[in-house]
Amino acid sequence: MNKVCKIGFLGMGTVAGGVWKHLWENREEMRRRFGCDFELSKVCVRDVSKPRDVPVPAELLTSNPLDVVDDPDIDVVCELMGGVDEAYKLTMRAFENGKSVVTANKALLCHRGGELFAAARKADCGYFFEASVAGGIPIIKIIREGLIANRFSRIYGILNGTCNYILTRMEREGASYEAILADAKKLGYVEQDESLDVDGFDTAHKAAVLAYIAHGKWVPLEDMIIEGIRSVTLDDMLWARDFDYRIKLVANIECDFASRKLSVRVYPALLPLSGIVSNVNGVFNAVAIDGDVVGESVFVGRGAGREATASAVISDIADAAKRLRGAPDLEFKSDDMGLSMASLKDMPGNFYMRFCVRDEAGILAQITSLFAEAGVSIEQLKQSKRAGDDRAHIVLTTHKTNEQSIEKLKSSLAETSALCGEPFVLRIFKK
Amino acid sequence: MNKVCKIGFLGMGTVAGGVWKHLWENREEMRRRFGCDFELSKVCVRDVSKPRDVPVPAELLTSNPLDVVDDPDIDVVCELMGGVDEAYKLTMRAFENGKSVVTANKALLCHRGGELFAAARKADCGYFFEASVAGGIPIIKIIREGLIANRFSRIYGILNGTCNYILTRMEREGASYEAILADAKKLGYVEQDESLDVDGFDTAHKAAVLAYIAHGKWVPLEDMIIEGIRSVTLDDMLWARDFDYRIKLVANIECDFASRKLSVRVYPALLPLSGIVSNVNGVFNAVAIDGDVVGESVFVGRGAGREATASAVISDIADAAKRLRGAPDLEFKSDDMGLSMASLKDMPGNFYMRFCVRDEAGILAQITSLFAEAGVSIEQLKQSKRAGDDRAHIVLTTHKTNEQSIEKLKSSLAETSALCGEPFVLRIFKK
Repeated sequence: MNKVCKIGFLGMGTVAGGVWKHLWENREEMRRRFGCDFELSKVCVRDVSKPRDVPVPAELLTSNPLDVVDDPDIDVVCELMGGVDEAYKLTMRAFENGKSVVTANKALLCHRGGELFAAARKADCGYFFEASVAGGIPIIKIIREGLIANRFSRIYGILNGTCNYILTRMEREGASYEAILADAKKLGYVEQDESLDVDGFDTAHKAAVLAYIAHGKWVPLEDMIIEGIRSVTLDDMLWARDFDYRIKLVANIECDFASRKLSVRVYPALLPLSGIVSNVNGVFNAVAIDGDVVGESVFVGRGAGREATASAVISDIADAAKRLRGAPDLEFKSDDMGLSMASLKDMPGNFYMRFCVRDEAGILAQITSLFAEAGVSIEQLKQSKRAGDDRAHIVLTTHKTNEQSIEKLKSSLAETSALCGEPFVLRIFKK
Repeated sequence: MNKVCKIGFLGMGTVAGGVWKHLWENREEMRRRFGCDFELSKVCVRDVSKPRDVPVPAELLTSNPLDVVDDPDIDVVCELMGGVDEAYKLTMRAFENGKSVVTANKALLCHRGGELFAAARKADCGYFFEASVAGGIPIIKIIREGLIANRFSRIYGILNGTCNYILTRMEREGASYEAILADAKKLGYVEQDESLDVDGFDTAHKAAVLAYIAHGKWVPLEDMIIEGIRSVTLDDMLWARDFDYRIKLVANIECDFASRKLSVRVYPALLPLSGIVSNVNGVFNAVAIDGDVVGESVFVGRGAGREATASAVISDIADAAKRLRGAPDLEFKSDDMGLSMASLKDMPGNFYMRFCVRDEAGILAQITSLFAEAGVSIEQLKQSKRAGDDRAHIVLTTHKTNEQSIEKLKSSLAETSALCGEPFVLRIFKK
């Protein structure tokens, strides 16, 4: 037992409250596990007078963040305030002042990670971010330390608990997206800006973090495919099931080591029902990893919520405390590998397509000839008719093709008068 | 880049060969990731002249293990020789000489772990053992570091890839235990002493390691329930499926924090088909963890094989190298919690039972009255008859009862003349 590790907090919301409560109530045991004493020394909140359910002594509260990041006694700053610009400034200032920072802020990492890690290194400070991706899975530590021997040809998984919760309930209850979204909002599961969750941006932020730790490269959102779950219907889920798939919002980070091409894509995809990831439901997250040494591993845990994220933050505080006691910083993998971005339009894959057609003789022949022209080969096709509907509903899956051919096919389908409305396309995730 | 980390090997079998090959072929990248240079400096093998498929320079080979553990230049010893007594002596000697040791030897840890960790601590050496449990899952690091905030009420899972391979193929191919075991032997999947695998001892060794890192207590094999898969028939697997379960050999480490009671049990169990662990097949391992902060997490990866285990050994070498550069040792959790062992006969649970009876009037009434007398309540029961067999086959599941009541019931069933042979009992694993 040596130097006391002094911890300051920026923000005392849900997650920070969980961290505080656990460290406070289990102080003795945590002290022993950390291998050093620690002190919860200062907390910056917006409103000092607001009543809280966490017992933070009033004299530790401040509304001035500089009281935390400029305090020479504080060793570790927990940045749990969220947002990008202010968090960026304060994190940089903490580094300038020689403090290590623990964060759960994936948006900040995605947008400014390059600068932040460079500043941390320059100032010889630690920057810890386990809680930024999949709180219930120590995936940052797993990838950087446990699987240090590996290169990763693919990392994919479910990174947003809210979307997984919505999709799971739609399927289980046969309910519409709108109904379950409304319910999830009531339960407080959806970000204030719902687009972060349902349009895939939160997943993209986390994918950027995983791509960085696995491949040493920050991939900007503009270089990703990012699609959310708004357009996924209950019918799609049932049809997918018919084809032995389940629809999940996935992040898919692929790296081809021969061509040194990296791709990061976020989209709702059809996953084989027989796999593990497709059976991860509710608010749970899953990360599947293909390592060149270890083979395939899959990790499953709670995606969000106060406790799971607090567990991750506390593991980072433990590592920050170890750093104070002499632990060297981890090297980032492969940041000199010279990876470039794969051309997204050339990405190969299998696709699912749904559309309606006028139910007339020759229509199917007309449509399938457009597939042939685009070079897209159909694997399975189902046509159905509903009472009171004079259109025919067609769903199909394709053999392996690529993004570009599907785009071309969509254009030519749009030009015919055979279709009622636009075709809806999802990617199929094969092993 | 500072001090060169010199690595010696005890043993150059399958796993060590994988470690050597990977470190050798990817020397530059691994050096960068480790944050220091390393050197493969000496290798002790039984037969120096034996041809190997791994390019170890002849001048590094020795048949005298003291050339490794007494070499003042060597920093880290990889003990990958297996066996208990000799490995124990050499590991202790390495500690006396101030060296850190990396091991995959779960039998050694289970039998002598207490002494070894004490010696390592006394000599201020690191002792690393990620490869001892579930090579493809960095479970030691996950439990000790990633989930450092947690206490674990239950850790359970599939820890023996060979048994999981056998059970998976039995179910998929409708084959007998004997047929698949013979095939697994041909493929080199079974330990020379097959009892280690199929009677559950290998799983028990690994469970002892997990119990130690989670609860700070070495549980001797005598204090565990250890049952293997020899008596599991294909019929059991099919009946289990009928009841919506799948049979897996599981280790189950439970800790009741209110009563401070710990139990470690290894047995073939019926797991709910809808869960993740029951869907982990082939040579894969799974570990499911209930943490008081993080909730439930599940980790899946290859259980054995050269590459997955090599991946784990290399992560330990990286940590040993970090230790050389100043990283403090991890504290073991909770070794002062004063846990005692739960009384195994009082352990509650649901059970599956199979037996044959003479197919006569009144027999079922006679048997069910024995259940009532033992206080064991039946949940589901199926009776079937086969062509050419004058007996009736009965399988059933019970409501919650305990080990003792089931033992009593088995005795009273054995005393009646109604049964043809002994009843076969398996435990049911409920959420």
